[in-house]
Amino acid sequence: MHAAELIERKRNGEEIPAAELREFVAAYARDEVPDYQAAALLMAVWFRGLSPAETFALTDAMVASGETVDLAARLGRAVVDKHSTGGVGDKTTLALGPVAAACGAPFGKMSGRGLGHTGGTLDKLESIPGFRVELSTDELVEQVREIGLAVAGQSADLVPADRKLYALRDVTATIDEVSLIAASIMSKKIAGGASALVLDVKVGEGAFMQTVEDARRLAETMRALGEEAGLDVVCLLTDMEQPLGRAVGNALEVREAYETLADGGPSDFRELVVVAGTQLLGLSDLGLDEETARERVTTSLADGSALAAYERWIRAQGGDPDPTLLPRAEVVSEVPAPAEGFVREVRAREVAAVAMALGAGRERKDEPVDHAVGVVCRAKRGDRVERGEPLAEIHARHRAAAEAAGAALLAAYEIGGEPEPRPLVLDLIR
Amino acid sequence: MHAAELIERKRNGEEIPAAELREFVAAYARDEVPDYQAAALLMAVWFRGLSPAETFALTDAMVASGETVDLAARLGRAVVDKHSTGGVGDKTTLALGPVAAACGAPFGKMSGRGLGHTGGTLDKLESIPGFRVELSTDELVEQVREIGLAVAGQSADLVPADRKLYALRDVTATIDEVSLIAASIMSKKIAGGASALVLDVKVGEGAFMQTVEDARRLAETMRALGEEAGLDVVCLLTDMEQPLGRAVGNALEVREAYETLADGGPSDFRELVVVAGTQLLGLSDLGLDEETARERVTTSLADGSALAAYERWIRAQGGDPDPTLLPRAEVVSEVPAPAEGFVREVRAREVAAVAMALGAGRERKDEPVDHAVGVVCRAKRGDRVERGEPLAEIHARHRAAAEAAGAALLAAYEIGGEPEPRPLVLDLIR
Repeated sequence: MHAAELIERKRNGEEIPAAELREFVAAYARDEVPDYQAAALLMAVWFRGLSPAETFALTDAMVASGETVDLAARLGRAVVDKHSTGGVGDKTTLALGPVAAACGAPFGKMSGRGLGHTGGTLDKLESIPGFRVELSTDELVEQVREIGLAVAGQSADLVPADRKLYALRDVTATIDEVSLIAASIMSKKIAGGASALVLDVKVGEGAFMQTVEDARRLAETMRALGEEAGLDVVCLLTDMEQPLGRAVGNALEVREAYETLADGGPSDFRELVVVAGTQLLGLSDLGLDEETARERVTTSLADGSALAAYERWIRAQGGDPDPTLLPRAEVVSEVPAPAEGFVREVRAREVAAVAMALGAGRERKDEPVDHAVGVVCRAKRGDRVERGEPLAEIHARHRAAAEAAGAALLAAYEIGGEPEPRPLVLDLIR
Repeated sequence: MHAAELIERKRNGEEIPAAELREFVAAYARDEVPDYQAAALLMAVWFRGLSPAETFALTDAMVASGETVDLAARLGRAVVDKHSTGGVGDKTTLALGPVAAACGAPFGKMSGRGLGHTGGTLDKLESIPGFRVELSTDELVEQVREIGLAVAGQSADLVPADRKLYALRDVTATIDEVSLIAASIMSKKIAGGASALVLDVKVGEGAFMQTVEDARRLAETMRALGEEAGLDVVCLLTDMEQPLGRAVGNALEVREAYETLADGGPSDFRELVVVAGTQLLGLSDLGLDEETARERVTTSLADGSALAAYERWIRAQGGDPDPTLLPRAEVVSEVPAPAEGFVREVRAREVAAVAMALGAGRERKDEPVDHAVGVVCRAKRGDRVERGEPLAEIHARHRAAAEAAGAALLAAYEIGGEPEPRPLVLDLIR
């Protein structure tokens, strides 16, 4: 394998044989191919894309670069997992894990830390006092066996090639390419050892994939990668023009997940939990048809069993599930509607920028996140508001930060005539 | 300047403002932007190209990254230089410098070492016993003042950004992009301080530019860059489907240049020396019209004054100009024509590969070159040959190497019906 020559062929639009691409990735993981050659290849891939065979080879090579965990084999049961391509206000795992566990489907998930406007699932969980995300693989397996549910930080030994490549993509403007995104996500899922997966592909301004067509392409690619590796995958395409639910911010989102598990919560978030939960149960080894699965999910929310599963889970990982103990920001201010009318847009990307500016997210891996701060969108698309009625709450550390955030958040809202309804779930691919 | 974001904009096809691009290059030269970000940008440039303004900015930034020499100002006269984009058997500088000096136009050139099937001009000169290519800038200026001619290795302090970028392009498959090639060549010429330049852009299978259109684009880009920097540039587009002249190999090419200066040599090489020499004189401060310039060049070849200038030059830099002292290969074997007919092609790229295999060139900067070995194409395009008549000579270290080279060289020749004539000089752009 001659690295410069492989880059040239990819650049020229040739397909790279699987064995050569695997060798390139393996050599890169071993530090035998330098970052600058990997960066050049990534940019060539950004322009040329990867064929299905190349995408398989890349995924394979990343899985092979580190340890793998066979969660399902160790438990002797199908283990379901859920992944989202990342959206604003996406706290789905926090509610979906307990729902799956309450319904009898073991849920085991390894999660990355992530960059962005809020932290990832791990950061959200860490806003819970005492919660411990660092579980060994043995602890993870044991906890899923005992209480049906565990979420842990991804081990550094899992897919090190992806870790290295992702960090490189992040600083070379090569994140947003469908094959690379698909291979990155699926390599982690395959190495993590779940047997089935519900993938939530976010679509819209606030997501990686801005159009349904791109999202569908990503979903199909990931499904194909899963199939190749013996992993059942169902993809949801869901709207990300506006934030999911109302809360955007780590502790705020935990609180909203808690409320949803207590049979409350915003209707769109609840809908997603029910739809994704239904698919998860369908992929499990419980042998449920779709209607029964949906009934079981809604029952788990109504009868308190999902909330009880949440409390068991949080305690098992050292945390206190009482939502009143979550950190709170010093300043909570309301953003009043400047006019009466219907909310036509709550632009997710702009809401994300406000959350980021408040300190809820991070730009670099080593930055801390502020768990307490964020935004609660009290009015969402289609809601009617009166002039002066609160559109949103800002949770901030200082009055000045709250004021700046309030002005910025107002710009994320569009108020006017009644908008056409827009569904949350745009498509289901299985 | 945010490097990743600048890469993203270039990748998306946006034009980067000159100030930002300059800052990126300057930061890269100071090791503040890492190789992997430069590599990603280079690949994005390979796909998107650079606008004229971006190409100016890149060239400027490379010139500004190191020292500059104002040769013309120090001599108080126009100084002419010549550059070729690189071809097989291209020993033009060795004859053109003496012609310019003999005709009264000061010729000062700083030359890079170069990779390829034979060494660059410096390697060719180093095959002359005693010849010293390492001149200080003061020595270079002094020698041009005294004898009208000097060729020296390019100082490491000249355009360090280009040096760094070129090395990176070489290993990331981003060499062959017109704006990058133009900026690299012209930054060195601008920093080197000549006041006028004849650029020989090679076209064909044996060159970077495979089509006249690409070559013209490169020529126009370089001329525009020169103009921007106050450097007069005339571009020749010349054929590189077959080697230039007959000799391909360091000492062999020196010998051929010597013969040409002694009013002999192959007709195509002689033609190029006359055409390029005429343009050089036209660009000098001698105030000659084209006809007079051409007469003066041909006279310098006929009356021995160009040869005398060559001998002065070689002696001034410590060498012995006697061509019988040049190193010779142990084995010289002939490649006989397998059939009678006309030579239809002598494919330059294949001849180059033979010279490379014999040891005449280098793949890495630190490799030595073998000055003695190479190929002499005794028959060229359009020549009629009888079966068994020698097509070429192989100059090799061992019999085995000569035999392998002979077989490979035969494959570079195509013999058949009489070919259409093809001109050497395809275009002249001024």
